[in-house]
Amino acid sequence: MGFERLHDHWTVRLGHTDAAGVMFFPAAFEVEQEFFERWLEAGGMSVRGMLEGALAPTPVVHCEAEYRRPVRVGDRLAVRLAGVGVGRKSFELAWEMALDGAVAVAVRVRRSSIDRASGHAVDLPPELRSWLESSQARTAAIT
Amino acid sequence: MGFERLHDHWTVRLGHTDAAGVMFFPAAFEVEQEFFERWLEAGGMSVRGMLEGALAPTPVVHCEAEYRRPVRVGDRLAVRLAGVGVGRKSFELAWEMALDGAVAVAVRVRRSSIDRASGHAVDLPPELRSWLESSQARTAAIT
Amino acid sequence: MGFERLHDHWTVRLGHTDAAGVMFFPAAFEVEQEFFERWLEAGGMSVRGMLEGALAPTPVVHCEAEYRRPVRVGDRLAVRLAGVGVGRKSFELAWEMALDGAVAVAVRVRRSSIDRASGHAVDLPPELRSWLESSQARTAAIT
Amino acid sequence: MGFERLHDHWTVRLGHTDAAGVMFFPAAFEVEQEFFERWLEAGGMSVRGMLEGALAPTPVVHCEAEYRRPVRVGDRLAVRLAGVGVGRKSFELAWEMALDGAVAVAVRVRRSSIDRASGHAVDLPPELRSWLESSQARTAAIT
Repeated sequence: MGFERLHDHWTVRLGHTDAAGVMFFPAAFEVEQEFFERWLEAGGMSVRGMLEGALAPTPVVHCEAEYRRPVRVGDRLAVRLAGVGVGRKSFELAWEMALDGAVAVAVRVRRSSIDRASGHAVDLPPELRSWLESSQARTAAIT
Repeated sequence: MGFERLHDHWTVRLGHTDAAGVMFFPAAFEVEQEFFERWLEAGGMSVRGMLEGALAPTPVVHCEAEYRRPVRVGDRLAVRLAGVGVGRKSFELAWEMALDGAVAVAVRVRRSSIDRASGHAVDLPPELRSWLESSQARTAAIT
Repeated sequence: MGFERLHDHWTVRLGHTDAAGVMFFPAAFEVEQEFFERWLEAGGMSVRGMLEGALAPTPVVHCEAEYRRPVRVGDRLAVRLAGVGVGRKSFELAWEMALDGAVAVAVRVRRSSIDRASGHAVDLPPELRSWLESSQARTAAIT
Repeated sequence: MGFERLHDHWTVRLGHTDAAGVMFFPAAFEVEQEFFERWLEAGGMSVRGMLEGALAPTPVVHCEAEYRRPVRVGDRLAVRLAGVGVGRKSFELAWEMALDGAVAVAVRVRRSSIDRASGHAVDLPPELRSWLESSQARTAAIT
């Protein structure tokens, strides 16, 4: 459950694949969302907390993925946080999903803190910034 | 867009399939949800309205599906509302998804009207009941 | 990872929820599929093996779910295999997904063994039947 | 059904949203996949044909999306092919999904033609290249 080490395994299930026999490409972002939530929880925060008002929500403003090798049902991906970018109102997490030691899918997602009422971007909350910075120190800075 | 006739076509896309080469079974309920929303809209209501307080929400309390023949990417399903069950606080819609004239997937979903604040079941709102009854008259009664 | 005990926890992520704030109902079957795969693997089989010809595939022929209480993002469901039904060519698994000790969602899925070439139903392979029977002995028989 | 005009509407359904009340970000790529398939079909090709050997498959090698404004259940997006990039072995489609005249989500997906047996990249098939070029002439060239 925990994600303190900033890496863990994740197994591809039938529902993540398509008729071409490989992972359906948007599923890479579902994996990212799951690991983002686990990363948040390892830092003492949660998406549930965001929805209930304990923390400014962080909707996705940009995402991208690069698919380097096919991933199939039953494959056990090694997922790790590979880099962190910290802005004033937004941040970016870079993830690598590897198979047999080679990166199969690389994903980057940028999220922005917003005010729940107005929807406008706001400064990252201190506890989020702090967890981003300590995660960045353990991985790499990205821009 | 409209669903006044209570039947329409729906094409299976890659994202609805899995590595076995056929429709991933839960996708049948995503189709049902889409057609439920179109059916609601044809009756002058909407899920958006439920979320914004214009109509009591109707969460799913039971669902089932029967898979009779494989459905593949590119298949154009003929989807029709096949029957309606109307209770005091809940209702059930039965759908048939056919391929070349034969039912490939049959789906039934029961939804219950609830009070937004308490979450308790409440009587079906009059406009929903009325649309259910007129839809039932044009299809079949189910129990 | 293992599923030898026939029960484990599963956390609801944002992607499994909808704008009503609860788990989107078809997601219950994605959970079932994941646990089915883990159950197969605990018995020495796999969906990957089915796709590669090591074992007769088992497409879903019927499924149903009952939703008893709302499930939200971050909820940690206790998922357990609650019962097993074994036929000659098909089998059914019953699952309970509980929150704070009370069943929130109950799911049943029936799968049928088929011949890969013809698509016709065939007798359950011996290793699958054997694993079903030993799982049934540890849970309950369902019909 | 047809997509000869290279633009059409698409309505957000409950299954595309999450508990934050907006479209779950990976759903933008499911929309893209559906419109990609319709675009292929308008050019006389299909994903089904790719899977059955009539045309070289085109797995996604890169994708990205930018989210500019929240999209909610019931919103009717105006989706249009906004630009086309044509390489020797790969191509990129840029899509805009607009709400009330303003782009809410912009998506780009790069796909590469591969040999089914080896999985290696191959030159784009002539009919695909031709349809890309005529679509590019009607939209914009992207790099």
